Amino acid sequence: MIIVGGTATNGIDERLSKLLGARLIKVEHKVFPDGESYVRIPSSLSGEEVVLVQTTQPPQDKNLMELFLMVEALRDVGASRVTAVVPYIAYSRQDRRFLDGEAISIKTVLNVMRSLGVSTLVTVEPHHQESLDYFGGEVRVVDPIPSLAKEVRRFVKNPFVLGPDRGAMGRAERLAKELGCRYSFLEKERDRHTGEIRVRAGNLGSLKGYDVVLVDDIISTGGTLVEATKIAQSLGAETVSAAAVHLLLVNGAYNRLREAGIKEIVGVNTVVPREKVNLVDISDQIAVKL
Amino acid sequence: MIIVGGTATNGIDERLSKLLGARLIKVEHKVFPDGESYVRIPSSLSGEEVVLVQTTQPPQDKNLMELFLMVEALRDVGASRVTAVVPYIAYSRQDRRFLDGEAISIKTVLNVMRSLGVSTLVTVEPHHQESLDYFGGEVRVVDPIPSLAKEVRRFVKNPFVLGPDRGAMGRAERLAKELGCRYSFLEKERDRHTGEIRVRAGNLGSLKGYDVVLVDDIISTGGTLVEATKIAQSLGAETVSAAAVHLLLVNGAYNRLREAGIKEIVGVNTVVPREKVNLVDISDQIAVKL
Repeated sequence: MIIVGGTATNGIDERLSKLLGARLIKVEHKVFPDGESYVRIPSSLSGEEVVLVQTTQPPQDKNLMELFLMVEALRDVGASRVTAVVPYIAYSRQDRRFLDGEAISIKTVLNVMRSLGVSTLVTVEPHHQESLDYFGGEVRVVDPIPSLAKEVRRFVKNPFVLGPDRGAMGRAERLAKELGCRYSFLEKERDRHTGEIRVRAGNLGSLKGYDVVLVDDIISTGGTLVEATKIAQSLGAETVSAAAVHLLLVNGAYNRLREAGIKEIVGVNTVVPREKVNLVDISDQIAVKL
Repeated sequence: MIIVGGTATNGIDERLSKLLGARLIKVEHKVFPDGESYVRIPSSLSGEEVVLVQTTQPPQDKNLMELFLMVEALRDVGASRVTAVVPYIAYSRQDRRFLDGEAISIKTVLNVMRSLGVSTLVTVEPHHQESLDYFGGEVRVVDPIPSLAKEVRRFVKNPFVLGPDRGAMGRAERLAKELGCRYSFLEKERDRHTGEIRVRAGNLGSLKGYDVVLVDDIISTGGTLVEATKIAQSLGAETVSAAAVHLLLVNGAYNRLREAGIKEIVGVNTVVPREKVNLVDISDQIAVKL
């Protein structure tokens, strides 16, 4: 097995190479003045089984195009099998038709990977597990919740896990189990046309004395978590922290979350945001799947 | 036939709709805060033959991803056939392996279009015609040289067409034929590692009294044309102008060309640069192919 480090790896390629004792090849790349990407596999890989590492954090389209280019180039230099480790898969939230005629973007992304020659896809905590069926090949999913729980345990005494919406219920349950604590979730409504969100407490009782841990798979603008923080605070939470997998943190999300009073922000290195956050390295959990 | 206007059309979709008397549907689109694109076909197109218009000028990766998403969405809303009008195809210059292991990027771009369901591809003046074979389906190519010649005739009296390198020879010959004048080409060398270019006059004689028209398919940074302009001027050219198809004009190319003394810059609306250039509308020539 040969590890091929793509153009966006967050160091996961190097860690996998060490953990597995496998040779690492770094893809050569540059961007032409007009914005086109260039990639080159600087080795023949004739007959080799290759593990390509490429995450698709922002800029998503650039990282996706480079993923596509690398997969085809790997087949062209003779790789017999390409396993793609894509820790964060972009476009995973557009995984169904909320309105007629919408693109199911994740389907297109997965279709393209598959048609270009990816045999096996390895990813971390997809937005919806079922949407990975669009890939049509073997999929291996890494569960980052135990790693997140280990980190969360370092700064909370009396945890209570809270999912910001019904979709986070499963994650909240899993994290609460790891932490050996109670959990619940809020009610979120999103206007599909304006994108506006509203979060409600539902029948959640007092949170007095609890260190509330908000859990989600992705933090984008942080809007939902800010609303959830307000609710947790209004219900008497001692502290509020956020544990999410993929920290996109766009449009000033970091400052917005800090200003709302969030104490700690924990995530996984599937995405590395610019701000200093508490990131768990997921490489060892990925290595187990290879 | 229904014309579907993509997210980057330069108005060609609207012109095609008028020229062909065909219904026009505009794709709904937006960009999420994290940078992901959203597209929606706001109509059922069950059983319809669709002509999708989408150019892939910068930002290339975004425009390509949106093209991919739209093609799949069109198939999902029932289009029986998708003809893609892609006036400018990004990544067309990486169409062979200059060094071992390089991605043949245009192959990947065309493979993806085909695998997602494009039946016929219509484009304007590809970088190399043969590279379109990677598409594997029907390809129709629009020749913009007659339209460019018509425009050039408006500002030159005594033209001499000059290609900046051997690759532009065919284009130079075609444009010279349209203008009824002489042509030649220069010798260009590019260092594949550093990207540095060198242009030489070869055995080109005096250009005294001639309005030199430099011709190329793409102007990116304009580096080659600046060198060619210097040579033309040193050989006594009366004026120097540039006629190219796809005017990317990146990294200050426009100012660089003007400062070099280029009088007019003519292009085609396959790409619309920010600067005020002389653009020929190619819609009528595309319409003939539909």
